[in-house]
Amino acid sequence: MPGVETIFSPALIGHHTLEDRNAVIIDVLRATTSICYALDQGAKSLMPVATPEDCLRYRTLGCLCAAERNGLKLPGFDMGNSPEEFNRAAVENRDIAITTTNGTYALLESHSARRIFIGSFLNLHALADYLIKDGKDISLVCAGWKNKVNLEDTLFAGALASLLTGFTCECDSTLMAMELWEASKNNLHEVVNSSSHAKRFKRLGVDDLPICLDLNRCAVVPEYVVDRIVAI
Amino acid sequence: MPGVETIFSPALIGHHTLEDRNAVIIDVLRATTSICYALDQGAKSLMPVATPEDCLRYRTLGCLCAAERNGLKLPGFDMGNSPEEFNRAAVENRDIAITTTNGTYALLESHSARRIFIGSFLNLHALADYLIKDGKDISLVCAGWKNKVNLEDTLFAGALASLLTGFTCECDSTLMAMELWEASKNNLHEVVNSSSHAKRFKRLGVDDLPICLDLNRCAVVPEYVVDRIVAI
Repeated sequence: MPGVETIFSPALIGHHTLEDRNAVIIDVLRATTSICYALDQGAKSLMPVATPEDCLRYRTLGCLCAAERNGLKLPGFDMGNSPEEFNRAAVENRDIAITTTNGTYALLESHSARRIFIGSFLNLHALADYLIKDGKDISLVCAGWKNKVNLEDTLFAGALASLLTGFTCECDSTLMAMELWEASKNNLHEVVNSSSHAKRFKRLGVDDLPICLDLNRCAVVPEYVVDRIVAI
Repeated sequence: MPGVETIFSPALIGHHTLEDRNAVIIDVLRATTSICYALDQGAKSLMPVATPEDCLRYRTLGCLCAAERNGLKLPGFDMGNSPEEFNRAAVENRDIAITTTNGTYALLESHSARRIFIGSFLNLHALADYLIKDGKDISLVCAGWKNKVNLEDTLFAGALASLLTGFTCECDSTLMAMELWEASKNNLHEVVNSSSHAKRFKRLGVDDLPICLDLNRCAVVPEYVVDRIVAI
């Protein structure tokens, strides 16, 4: 029977083994939500890159360039990391280079996994169904905030693990995430509102919580293939 | 108002700042439980050391030598890491050098903290009272298992944080730990029995759960001073 483990921070990836496992990258607020939304709105692909400088080089190739640091869009870029910026009018049939504080870092750190998927509340059920059919061991990789553990990514890991029928729970982190999801799922917005990230949003005047917690809004399954994320 | 943060694994210590903060080292199964128990039973001090080789050098100084790796006592040592081994007959008025898989590692990694205390369910209330009186910011450092997050240390962090009236909750990890403690405190033994560590105990034939979950059995407050842990 395949298993599910959860990794609460990119800084812990080195203490786990991703080889031969499917990894799910989780950065609910907001990179992986924006990626799911962009693909659902017709974007062709997203290229995650480590630095804003690398990101801008893609402009010459005709790509849109998205960059966020510390919650804010960087000047000179087409968009930051707010899902609504990736609407159909902006992204349809476009390739997008993207760099963010946490999500793209977690993704690039997970390169040794068998396959790498992108998870958010928007595509929760679609992703769970795909992973169940694929039937391989799964590592849920929470992006956190600058290597610190965060609540919303943990809750999503718990939500996804709870849907993975036929999989064993391989570690205490998965147990903890599922328990926290059970305790929070009926008042998710209120619970996430108590998180450190939601407080950061308030300070920055960002109001992305409603779209980021819009469960099963789309059926996209994004996978990172070679150097870009596409809908499969 | 002072704050409480929680660090789920020694691998995350480098992403937090311990300077000017009181650190609490947590390795409920079993290092910090054994340390609290030993001091309560009359041991003079415990010297945490990194390796079994370093540990044995203390024998020439008249110390008892305790060493555990992967859950088992190492051959040639006076004791391993089972609390009952540190009973009064064995430890009264003795200094003990100790090395364990996770607990001593977490402690040595926390050297930059203002003061370092040892926490276990045995001294939960005594430690909380002391920390409240001291009134400084607190970092709860969970030892985990080989840098992976574990359930029992998280539950203890939640239990302790819940008692720290007058402190703010500084991070999502503390929020999560308190939520998990609330959900588990009325059936603690059963919940911890579901943890990966309890399963490891069963494989090894170890039955230390009852003593490790014996809340407030003693009133000792162990502090790591210079190179040894003493009751203050």
